[in-house]
Amino acid sequence: MFDLHPQLAADTLPLAELELCLVRLMNCREIPWLVLVPKRAGAREITDLSEDDQLLLMREIARVSRLLTSNFKPHKINIAALGNVVPQLHIHAIARFTHDGAWPKPVWGNIAMEPYTASELPIMVRKIAQFFQT
Amino acid sequence: MFDLHPQLAADTLPLAELELCLVRLMNCREIPWLVLVPKRAGAREITDLSEDDQLLLMREIARVSRLLTSNFKPHKINIAALGNVVPQLHIHAIARFTHDGAWPKPVWGNIAMEPYTASELPIMVRKIAQFFQT
Repeated sequence: MFDLHPQLAADTLPLAELELCLVRLMNCREIPWLVLVPKRAGAREITDLSEDDQLLLMREIARVSRLLTSNFKPHKINIAALGNVVPQLHIHAIARFTHDGAWPKPVWGNIAMEPYTASELPIMVRKIAQFFQT
Repeated sequence: MFDLHPQLAADTLPLAELELCLVRLMNCREIPWLVLVPKRAGAREITDLSEDDQLLLMREIARVSRLLTSNFKPHKINIAALGNVVPQLHIHAIARFTHDGAWPKPVWGNIAMEPYTASELPIMVRKIAQFFQT
């Protein structure tokens, strides 16, 4: 049975459910940072997915990349499946800006993980959720 | 016309050429670290590729992931398309070990970029190149 890893559940907020992945929002107010979690129990690596699921994952990565590009006009998109700390397969899709606190370094360990405020969060969630309804 | 970015050319060594990507070896002797570079002029983001190329990219990512898994038995594979420093689209595929110098952090900025020695390099290149001949 598929369960979201407790650390991912604690760090992120629900946004949408696609055919393969849950789309979650990293609770980090500095940058638009999404996390895709394939709904496949036990998957740790991309190669743990079936070939069909791998291709579906690429389609969903491209879809959230387009979302980040159109909504936030970032200078760069960062896509990464690391999983050194949380073993459950999850893919980061992050809008990066030359003025963000970690630029040009990767975000992990280089950016303040300050959560969204109560007034910011619903605006952000609505802005992103709209994309998935179209 | 497709040209390899000078920084990628300087940091990596040629290993193989797949249908979409050049496969290059990062010249970092501490860990097996491959870089896939789609042979598409001007591509910066995965979404700059055609949909067919995106799916081919996923197949080639899975292929090099299997190579790293079978050849090096890592604890984790890290896959990442960052490009904050070198804008040309390139995908890192890195074999990570709990005993490597950066674990569990991402490698960028956290690992010694010491090049392979003249005796190590041909062994490494042969070990990986063999995989692409099968």
